[in-house]
Amino acid sequence: MKQRLLPGIFMVVLWILLLSASSFIFWCVLTIGTAIALYEFFRMIDKTPGTGVLLLSVLTCLIPVLVSADGSPSEVLIGSYLALLGLVVLTIFFYTRFADPLAFLIHSGFAVFYIALCSSFLVLLRFLPAGNSWLLVLTAITAGSDTGAYYSGRAFGKKKLCPSISPAKTINGAIGGVLVAVLAATLIGVFFLPDVGMVQLALAAALLAVVGIAGDLAESIIKRGTGIKDSGTLLGGHGGLLDRIDSLLLTAPLLYLLLTSGVLR
Amino acid sequence: MKQRLLPGIFMVVLWILLLSASSFIFWCVLTIGTAIALYEFFRMIDKTPGTGVLLLSVLTCLIPVLVSADGSPSEVLIGSYLALLGLVVLTIFFYTRFADPLAFLIHSGFAVFYIALCSSFLVLLRFLPAGNSWLLVLTAITAGSDTGAYYSGRAFGKKKLCPSISPAKTINGAIGGVLVAVLAATLIGVFFLPDVGMVQLALAAALLAVVGIAGDLAESIIKRGTGIKDSGTLLGGHGGLLDRIDSLLLTAPLLYLLLTSGVLR
Repeated sequence: MKQRLLPGIFMVVLWILLLSASSFIFWCVLTIGTAIALYEFFRMIDKTPGTGVLLLSVLTCLIPVLVSADGSPSEVLIGSYLALLGLVVLTIFFYTRFADPLAFLIHSGFAVFYIALCSSFLVLLRFLPAGNSWLLVLTAITAGSDTGAYYSGRAFGKKKLCPSISPAKTINGAIGGVLVAVLAATLIGVFFLPDVGMVQLALAAALLAVVGIAGDLAESIIKRGTGIKDSGTLLGGHGGLLDRIDSLLLTAPLLYLLLTSGVLR
Repeated sequence: MKQRLLPGIFMVVLWILLLSASSFIFWCVLTIGTAIALYEFFRMIDKTPGTGVLLLSVLTCLIPVLVSADGSPSEVLIGSYLALLGLVVLTIFFYTRFADPLAFLIHSGFAVFYIALCSSFLVLLRFLPAGNSWLLVLTAITAGSDTGAYYSGRAFGKKKLCPSISPAKTINGAIGGVLVAVLAATLIGVFFLPDVGMVQLALAAALLAVVGIAGDLAESIIKRGTGIKDSGTLLGGHGGLLDRIDSLLLTAPLLYLLLTSGVLR
């Protein structure tokens, strides 16, 4: 528990500091974080031929985040394409050095999509009106859902949610997680987003918490498929960076969609 | 040869008819075409559990094209995310029915990226100023490059371009292909895009032809990796639909980038 608590508090403090920094610093830190997550992914998948090509691959996959610096969604879209083109060129160029070139192309293409494209939505969110407060709400939902699921799962958990994917998750844990996430989001909302309707915010938080659980399960599918327990050891008991951001990867784009489509606000 | 020529002429006529149709019809036909290409891809990769889930997967992967109907790049970006989320949910829901759930998630995620996201750029192109003429230029480049490579490869071809990926391709064939592509593009340009600088257009056509060859090689990597010769038998000697659009998938987004960044025009 202590192994989880200390890095947890450390990360919350770090995140709040980061949100109060400039957009440029936010983008820089996010780029580095995404690079680490991509590196962890490639290490888990392990289809790369040597360190040089691994670094080139991570850099290529990073393009969507790199071009997100000025908050334009169409540049992220073009950046995703450029990453794909770069990976095709890399695969052609180093074709004979890959044990399975098609597997490398498909896995690294998926990494762009799942890790880089999704995490560039965190940068895009920051450029929306009150983007900082929304990012705070988003992390409150993730943290609330994790904490709620942990305690209510231990207290009342019996029926498994998805035993074949993640045996530790229970249905009561998930319900507790969603409830605490809604509570956390509305609390932050009252202080930082007084103009947003509370019912709307609560409903959105519930949806985001559910999608966050799907994000958790997606990461479990990757771990189970590759036979690896944690994506890395960067954060002590919290596992790798990818383990920490798995829910955010799927919830950030959804919050962006809710905000830009006018469903929220 | 006759087996290649007839479907070839048929496709050119069909394409010109399609370009003169309304944006809505263009989008409809492209959606159907992308659905067929996705279906062919899933059949090649063969990681799907039965027809029902296969159809659901194709529909989910199709989202970026479906939402491209009004030509907004940010909707295509959001659509790509929604496709990923949908695939995660599909994988969780049918987890026990997949032989290898992670492989399904990664392969179908790659299909969204490589097939649906890239082909929605064809719809986005149509909404740009003179979009129709540019689409005509793009297909002239593809057709010119294919034809030029075929004949100059047969006449002067000796040194192989990429023997381990595609043994039939020669360096002279590639050069001939690029030259004919540049010729075809500038010819179309003179008639349909009189305001565009010819040198610029020729340089862009050369770049697009080279990237088109990379697209061809990407498809070869997929075929070689899966051990399948043609993606389908829809078009007789032309193979499947995916075989035909492989270059377009990589060149359409690049042309869109050149046009929206102001490099062309």
